[in-house]
Amino acid sequence: MLNGNYPARVRIVEVGPRDGLQNEKLPVATTTKLALIERLADAGLGVIEATAFVSPKWVPQMADAAEVMAGLPQRAGIAYPVLAPNLKGFEAALAAGAKEVAIFTAASETFCQKNTNCSIDESFVRFAPIMAAARDAGVAVRGYVSCVLGCPYEGAIAPQAVLDATQRLLQIGCYEVSLGDTIGVGTPGSTARLFERLCASVPAAQLAGHFHDTWGQALPNILTALDFGVATFDNSVAGLGGCPYSPGATGNVATEDVVYMLDGLGIVTGVSLERLVDAAAFISAALGRAPASRVARAWLARQQGLAKPA
Amino acid sequence: MLNGNYPARVRIVEVGPRDGLQNEKLPVATTTKLALIERLADAGLGVIEATAFVSPKWVPQMADAAEVMAGLPQRAGIAYPVLAPNLKGFEAALAAGAKEVAIFTAASETFCQKNTNCSIDESFVRFAPIMAAARDAGVAVRGYVSCVLGCPYEGAIAPQAVLDATQRLLQIGCYEVSLGDTIGVGTPGSTARLFERLCASVPAAQLAGHFHDTWGQALPNILTALDFGVATFDNSVAGLGGCPYSPGATGNVATEDVVYMLDGLGIVTGVSLERLVDAAAFISAALGRAPASRVARAWLARQQGLAKPA
Repeated sequence: MLNGNYPARVRIVEVGPRDGLQNEKLPVATTTKLALIERLADAGLGVIEATAFVSPKWVPQMADAAEVMAGLPQRAGIAYPVLAPNLKGFEAALAAGAKEVAIFTAASETFCQKNTNCSIDESFVRFAPIMAAARDAGVAVRGYVSCVLGCPYEGAIAPQAVLDATQRLLQIGCYEVSLGDTIGVGTPGSTARLFERLCASVPAAQLAGHFHDTWGQALPNILTALDFGVATFDNSVAGLGGCPYSPGATGNVATEDVVYMLDGLGIVTGVSLERLVDAAAFISAALGRAPASRVARAWLARQQGLAKPA
Repeated sequence: MLNGNYPARVRIVEVGPRDGLQNEKLPVATTTKLALIERLADAGLGVIEATAFVSPKWVPQMADAAEVMAGLPQRAGIAYPVLAPNLKGFEAALAAGAKEVAIFTAASETFCQKNTNCSIDESFVRFAPIMAAARDAGVAVRGYVSCVLGCPYEGAIAPQAVLDATQRLLQIGCYEVSLGDTIGVGTPGSTARLFERLCASVPAAQLAGHFHDTWGQALPNILTALDFGVATFDNSVAGLGGCPYSPGATGNVATEDVVYMLDGLGIVTGVSLERLVDAAAFISAALGRAPASRVARAWLARQQGLAKPA
């Protein structure tokens, strides 16, 4: 039956310009990034993760973070969160005019060590001065938890470990926690078990789903999370981002695949699918490949089909 | 929440060797088809649609139907239905030893005309002698309805039109009706509305879902159908088949993506995902391309990753 628990409206956090592009090997021009962000704004996206203030040694693709910030389309009602993993990054983000930052930890101890070179506890030590500075500056902070449904090193992750990290992020002042299935191994079964545990202690309004499509499960997992009242989802236009842990495999779920599903469920997103596909086609052409999303491919194939003489 | 309506066991109808291969432009050797079927049987699939007895003028890829039938692995408990759209095809299928055939009509009048050159009513006139001959021969007949969630010519399709075609197929003696989202435009919203209408009049046990992934919705649609107690799904190994109405777009949902989801839900299929990926890799290599399924790509990428020196 059509599920009565589904929210009437979903807030989409577009992560393509940051999470999507950060692993691209060839440099993407700042003007291309800004042209993408402009198209995403045109499509009606209200939250666009714009860039990351991280070491250019580790993430060269984000070395132009300040230039991206300086060129962002200034429109009412659009938020541009940026990733700021430490105080140095936070200060640079603040200097560049950021009004919202994101910090990240993991539900897996090993992943946290390998990805950020510190333990989960140590990641919270790093967060303390960021949270204090953010409070002083009136900057909102979003928390990310990686590996919520599985870890490339540890395998299965206990929902309790995800709850622990989530509650800690909320306690230090994050307004929302985004739950990342970093390697995309979750299914509607494990997703339901996770949200059963989380939603017993945390309001669904403080949770966001960040699903990867590596094993094809992102949309059924989102459908499952919707059933728990979760109403914020992170997605990446054109499925940008791939999966750094499985080269050649799919990564971030494509925003257009999610919007198509939500449109079909009558759930309001405020996003124009047509303009979103335009953004997907633009960035895919700029990167020299076809969009990874099935909706963009079907849309563009249909256009070509319709363009043919009958 | 984990849904209590989900069936404990799902029967998978593997359609790769027929529906998947029929639109391949280059001829696929009969030995390759049989090697694929052997691998699918090894993977534990209990129903494998083996071939089609159709005009080789229209579907040259199925011209070797009798040879395929003669070479099928004979194992207890595996059914090999074949497509037989008319009496001539049925007689050829019977002569080749078929124990089960499939017939097809549509929920869209225009699609039926364009695809089979007859109206929906006329398709049932064609079915009458097949059903009589099948009864005499003790051959089981499965019905297909195309375009249950949308038509490339008519657009939206009323659930009532699907119900009408379904009930007529059951009344003439089909043991089950497979509901095809031929162009893959359905979403969990339209899927729920369809099954609400169907399940008010037809037992879920007589219905099968045949979802296409063209717009990325096959898995969430299957999840929705499971919620109505539907427990039979048609899928195609490696996502073979594409979408003849949107060249370049995805078509049949990949069996391995479905099995991965069902495994995660604790729903029994009897299929070994590892062996299924082996079958997907085999046929994809034979066709000279990567598997269209995300599970096969992730599995193979992971294997390559693991094979690398640490």
